Amino acid sequence: MRPAMSHTRRRFIGSCAALAGGVVLSVPAEGRGGRPRVNATRLRRNLEGLGVFGRPVGGGFGDGVTRVGYSDADVAGRAYTMDLMRRAGLTPRVDAAGNILGRRAGREDALPPVLFGSHIDSVPDGGNFDGDLGSMAAIEVVEALHEAGTMTHRPLEVVIWANEEGVAYGNGLCGSRAAAGKLVPGELDQVWNGVAKADAIRKVGGDPDRIDESRRHPGSFHAYLELHIEQGGTLDKEGIPIGVVEGIVAIDRYEVTVRGFANHAGTTPMPDRRDALIAASKLVLAVQEIVTSEPGRQVGTVGHLAVTPGAPNVVPGVVRHTIELRDLSAGKIARLAEAIRARARRIALETRTEIEIKPTSHHEAALATPWVQQAIEEAAGRLGLGTKRLPSGAGHDAQMMALLGPMGMIFVPSVAGISHSPRESTRWEDCANGANALLETVLEIAG
Amino acid sequence: MRPAMSHTRRRFIGSCAALAGGVVLSVPAEGRGGRPRVNATRLRRNLEGLGVFGRPVGGGFGDGVTRVGYSDADVAGRAYTMDLMRRAGLTPRVDAAGNILGRRAGREDALPPVLFGSHIDSVPDGGNFDGDLGSMAAIEVVEALHEAGTMTHRPLEVVIWANEEGVAYGNGLCGSRAAAGKLVPGELDQVWNGVAKADAIRKVGGDPDRIDESRRHPGSFHAYLELHIEQGGTLDKEGIPIGVVEGIVAIDRYEVTVRGFANHAGTTPMPDRRDALIAASKLVLAVQEIVTSEPGRQVGTVGHLAVTPGAPNVVPGVVRHTIELRDLSAGKIARLAEAIRARARRIALETRTEIEIKPTSHHEAALATPWVQQAIEEAAGRLGLGTKRLPSGAGHDAQMMALLGPMGMIFVPSVAGISHSPRESTRWEDCANGANALLETVLEIAG
Repeated sequence: MRPAMSHTRRRFIGSCAALAGGVVLSVPAEGRGGRPRVNATRLRRNLEGLGVFGRPVGGGFGDGVTRVGYSDADVAGRAYTMDLMRRAGLTPRVDAAGNILGRRAGREDALPPVLFGSHIDSVPDGGNFDGDLGSMAAIEVVEALHEAGTMTHRPLEVVIWANEEGVAYGNGLCGSRAAAGKLVPGELDQVWNGVAKADAIRKVGGDPDRIDESRRHPGSFHAYLELHIEQGGTLDKEGIPIGVVEGIVAIDRYEVTVRGFANHAGTTPMPDRRDALIAASKLVLAVQEIVTSEPGRQVGTVGHLAVTPGAPNVVPGVVRHTIELRDLSAGKIARLAEAIRARARRIALETRTEIEIKPTSHHEAALATPWVQQAIEEAAGRLGLGTKRLPSGAGHDAQMMALLGPMGMIFVPSVAGISHSPRESTRWEDCANGANALLETVLEIAG
Repeated sequence: MRPAMSHTRRRFIGSCAALAGGVVLSVPAEGRGGRPRVNATRLRRNLEGLGVFGRPVGGGFGDGVTRVGYSDADVAGRAYTMDLMRRAGLTPRVDAAGNILGRRAGREDALPPVLFGSHIDSVPDGGNFDGDLGSMAAIEVVEALHEAGTMTHRPLEVVIWANEEGVAYGNGLCGSRAAAGKLVPGELDQVWNGVAKADAIRKVGGDPDRIDESRRHPGSFHAYLELHIEQGGTLDKEGIPIGVVEGIVAIDRYEVTVRGFANHAGTTPMPDRRDALIAASKLVLAVQEIVTSEPGRQVGTVGHLAVTPGAPNVVPGVVRHTIELRDLSAGKIARLAEAIRARARRIALETRTEIEIKPTSHHEAALATPWVQQAIEEAAGRLGLGTKRLPSGAGHDAQMMALLGPMGMIFVPSVAGISHSPRESTRWEDCANGANALLETVLEIAG
């Protein structure tokens, strides 16, 4: 007989004993009241197994992966993932956009399904948890239900989205954008590393000629759920196991060009200079100052900056840099951008430079649906797990699904907030807690 | 009969009439008291002729040149220059380092010669005056003496130094460093664009196997003189035709590495960031502030700056940038560097980054010899030309010659202080004035 679930530890559903060289987890397949629970050992084993695909030569789990969308490592990882889906009782299929889908029948099988999943592609030198955890947890949720013989009222559908990171072809959320009808005209003709995007989609089993068939329509799912690592450090710092995402932030990007005058650094007296880097440095600091001048979780970043001509003995003539602003409120970041523009005008005057600020992209915020947020909170509460509401500063496939129907996301802590790095990590107990929160929410929503 | 020299314009020795499409200059071959004068028309024609070598396709004079040392354009320009030397009555020879030399006998021919000249190599997209003016003027001085049948007491020697700019092989003053015995060990084995430096020197007629033969020894010349464009804007702004160089500044360069922590720009809250670009921006502004905090002509420049990883959506993890400090006083720039280091320590603390400042090169100042400076001033005075003493912020072959004997430099105005650019320009009257000041100084010094 399996032991009853332990409630002695707030932060872990299921007992865990770490042994040298491995971990043995006792497997509570049912929670209180006979509710199914995930198998934490299997979840971990599947996640570790996925880490083989794109692993650096000579590395181990925890050394990260390079599993760029449509790459050979991605193709191999997808085959592995589809095998896991089969073991969980699903029959995976690849849609025209290259998304992997697996449907589980419900008692009322004609109802729109509860859709959940994530992605398995990574950035170069990425971590072992971004996307991978949500994908493996989605499959584990189905396998746990399969094992327990639990049938839900509504059907369920697991999805592994294609090329979320957008390292290939430079524009992310590829599979979910196709599903939301948000592909950009001409996108399939784009070439990256000598391969047209249409051919890359064919490589993973998609059918770019019939890409419209991958499209989902409003009302075609009951709700979309995604478990993901936070990628920031808030949950880890505050010791909270479950984040309930309020929404995915709006992102505005700008390209700034500062034009001074390049001249000989030896022969141009300081007062005669029109140094573009002096002006840009003032603006970089102004972005930080303005963004932090009001309360809230908004962020502003100058991540790319290039100096021309860029020689030690030449006064910089032109500096180009980015500004990126993010917040759940598009109005707030527009207001911050206005303040930055006003400051830039003052800096240009003061440094005798010209500063041009051009918007380059605008991504709308995607708010999580209130009743889904509440369902996640209640599910976590039933599991005895503390929660915190927080925005997602990163983009996710969930933002595309929010265009079509109710959406919610579950975050688990990222150790020290590190992500997009081989050092990205989430504790195994937090992985299991997140997967159980997903399972419990699915059970609640699917009935 | 040639007209007597006009003294009505303070700033031009010789009368000048600009016509559409060209210029006709009356040619005063002799100044007051029968002293020879340069032929301004010939000087201009020779300078314009040199501008053909390395000219951009479809361009004209004033569109600049790319005549990198040892390039085909350099080789062709050197052949042209040697032809001009022959016309001036010299017999050019190429020394082992690739310098072009032309000796003119003196009445006391065993005395050490007065040496003067400049260089004809350029930076990529360089101007038509940097080096070219001093080279053509040196030849013109000899040709004017040749025409006037004037023999000096001491012998004269014209020199066209090889690869002054150091675009090829990255280290300038190549010919004059060889002459001063300051080549760096292994320098001849360096490879640039697939060619070893020794072979590049062979290409221009030098003999790297016997490079020591190009070496000059202290006392082997009576004085070294060089006419050059100012490259800064001081003379032009103040309307002064002749600059008397006090010396060539010391140059200290540093490589700064700022280490923060790269992280996701969407998920890393502002207070949790260790943004290397924020720290670097503060340091860039501190360099300017510290350098301008005391009176003097010292300059400080951050000319190169690179951000890693350099993506719009990643908080900068590492920034590397240069700091360059220049002044006639090496002590002053060392003191400024110390103040910059102290500020960097404060910035590192305040931004939770690490800042490392590593010295990468130190060039000593080269002071012009007081009696040579005085001779230039007196020569200009006799020509009715105003003078100003000023440092040279740029490096010149003259600084190598200063290691071996008396040295002086004559500057003429650069329009708007622009140099190392196709827009580099010096008015023709200023070119002629500078050449006459060189001639008059040579006559004074050579006796």
